[in-house]
Amino acid sequence: DILSHGQYDTVYNFLSLVIASQLFTALFLLISLPRILPRYRQAITVAIIVCGIAAYHYFRIFDSFKEAFVTTSVGGTGDYTQAVGTGFNEGYRYVDWFLTVPLLLVELIAVLALARKVQSGLLMRLVPAAALMIALGYPGEISGENSLRIIFGLLSMIPFAYILYILFVQLSKSLTSQPASVRTTLSRLRYLLVISWIVYPIAYVLPLFNAGGGDAWVSKQVGYSVADIVAKAVYALIIFSVAKAKSYEDS
Amino acid sequence: DILSHGQYDTVYNFLSLVIASQLFTALFLLISLPRILPRYRQAITVAIIVCGIAAYHYFRIFDSFKEAFVTTSVGGTGDYTQAVGTGFNEGYRYVDWFLTVPLLLVELIAVLALARKVQSGLLMRLVPAAALMIALGYPGEISGENSLRIIFGLLSMIPFAYILYILFVQLSKSLTSQPASVRTTLSRLRYLLVISWIVYPIAYVLPLFNAGGGDAWVSKQVGYSVADIVAKAVYALIIFSVAKAKSYEDS
Ligand SMILES: CC1=C(/C=C/C(C)=C/C=C/C(C)=C/C=O)C(C)(C)CCC1
Ligand SMILES: CC1=C(/C=C/C(C)=C/C=C/C(C)=C/C=O)C(C)(C)CCC1
Repeated sequence: DILSHGQYDTVYNFLSLVIASQLFTALFLLISLPRILPRYRQAITVAIIVCGIAAYHYFRIFDSFKEAFVTTSVGGTGDYTQAVGTGFNEGYRYVDWFLTVPLLLVELIAVLALARKVQSGLLMRLVPAAALMIALGYPGEISGENSLRIIFGLLSMIPFAYILYILFVQLSKSLTSQPASVRTTLSRLRYLLVISWIVYPIAYVLPLFNAGGGDAWVSKQVGYSVADIVAKAVYALIIFSVAKAKSYEDS
Repeated sequence: DILSHGQYDTVYNFLSLVIASQLFTALFLLISLPRILPRYRQAITVAIIVCGIAAYHYFRIFDSFKEAFVTTSVGGTGDYTQAVGTGFNEGYRYVDWFLTVPLLLVELIAVLALARKVQSGLLMRLVPAAALMIALGYPGEISGENSLRIIFGLLSMIPFAYILYILFVQLSKSLTSQPASVRTTLSRLRYLLVISWIVYPIAYVLPLFNAGGGDAWVSKQVGYSVADIVAKAVYALIIFSVAKAKSYEDS
């Protein structure tokens, strides 16, 4: 792929935006942790870890991008071509998701502070499903063959559908036991989760429709960046506001 | 652009000054946080995050500057020209503002500790307006075309005017409910805000008047650096003094 100067800058600045968002969301939550009642700290601690892991991976992705595209123009104002001897590593994203997607579900369940048995029942189903979903997507993504992309994509859809079933059918019962002040926030949070998560399978199937070229590639990177900020940092801040409201209510 | 040795050093040292100012303002506030009553800690936490985000971006800006201008002179005493293969990334500033400008307004509203409803009403208007103002400025800045610069600049002025209206008309009512000891400080803080913020649209329109060349570029970088220190670090320290005075009064 060849990137114009504007395309290169757009990706570059979005990647840096994600680093700053994740890193300082983690820091904000770390500083604010003592203001939360101990029983909700588990949720916020997991949120800090998720944003921290994302920041780590985005530092790597940023460096990988900077190495993978080069220009010979003065002031970097010309076109950028792929470098000799190194490429952009999409794999970082899958490694990141493999760790963070299960943890995002842990975060949600933890802030509900359900009865121990209900909680572990939900986690035993959500966490392996999330890990399986990402693990199944990986071979489809890196193979570069359409047939494998389709097969593994379909397989990955099974745990994805299962997660949505648990969140929207099973979890609805537990939501009624939450304090009224946070019930709507929590219910809306699930929609934010679905809307931001759906970006990933959409980006996955795009190559099947021959959506190639610089513009498609740039859109994909920008789409991932925005989805990652919403699904991790914005999500964490909403979880934090729920934990704060519940802390206030309980004390 | 070509920079003389003196011009290069001036920018270099100002960028480093900003890093030190932001980083250690953040650190100072972090260490002082326990001395503030819990109800004002939110404001100071946001101030820490703002200065931290700025420090992150100035580290990046500093590195970008060092890579973008090079000299072949012994001891670096000659002229500096633009490097091959990389340029100075102004985009960092917009990424920074996109995150920090809304947060600067959150900081101000948080330290007032208004009734929950009044507070969320103000934030719901100020935060999106601030994000929109910066997002609209970005395409005008990077396009390099005067017509786009004018159109997006004018569009960006609309949320800017709206923010000033909220701060000076709507907020004035809330100021009367503040303790007498901080009322003048808070009122003056708004003027400091306007004076430091106005630097940015002025720097934005300068290229329209053909203010090119090394001197104009250096002035712009120095102007941004000073404005960033005033609008973030000095502003944070004033917010801190208000929070301390109110903590003292309340207890
Ligand atoms: C269904 C499906 C997928 C789902 C991916 C998801 C849902 C990823 C979520 C990532 C998140 C939430 C990241 C956090 O920031 C894959 C693996 C692309 C493969 C194709 C099928
Ligand atoms: C009105 C206007 C602008 C306003 C920018 C402002 C007000 C930036 C403030 C930045 C701050 C406060 C940084 C903190 O350190 C733009 C985007 C240049 C585009 C042209 C019109």
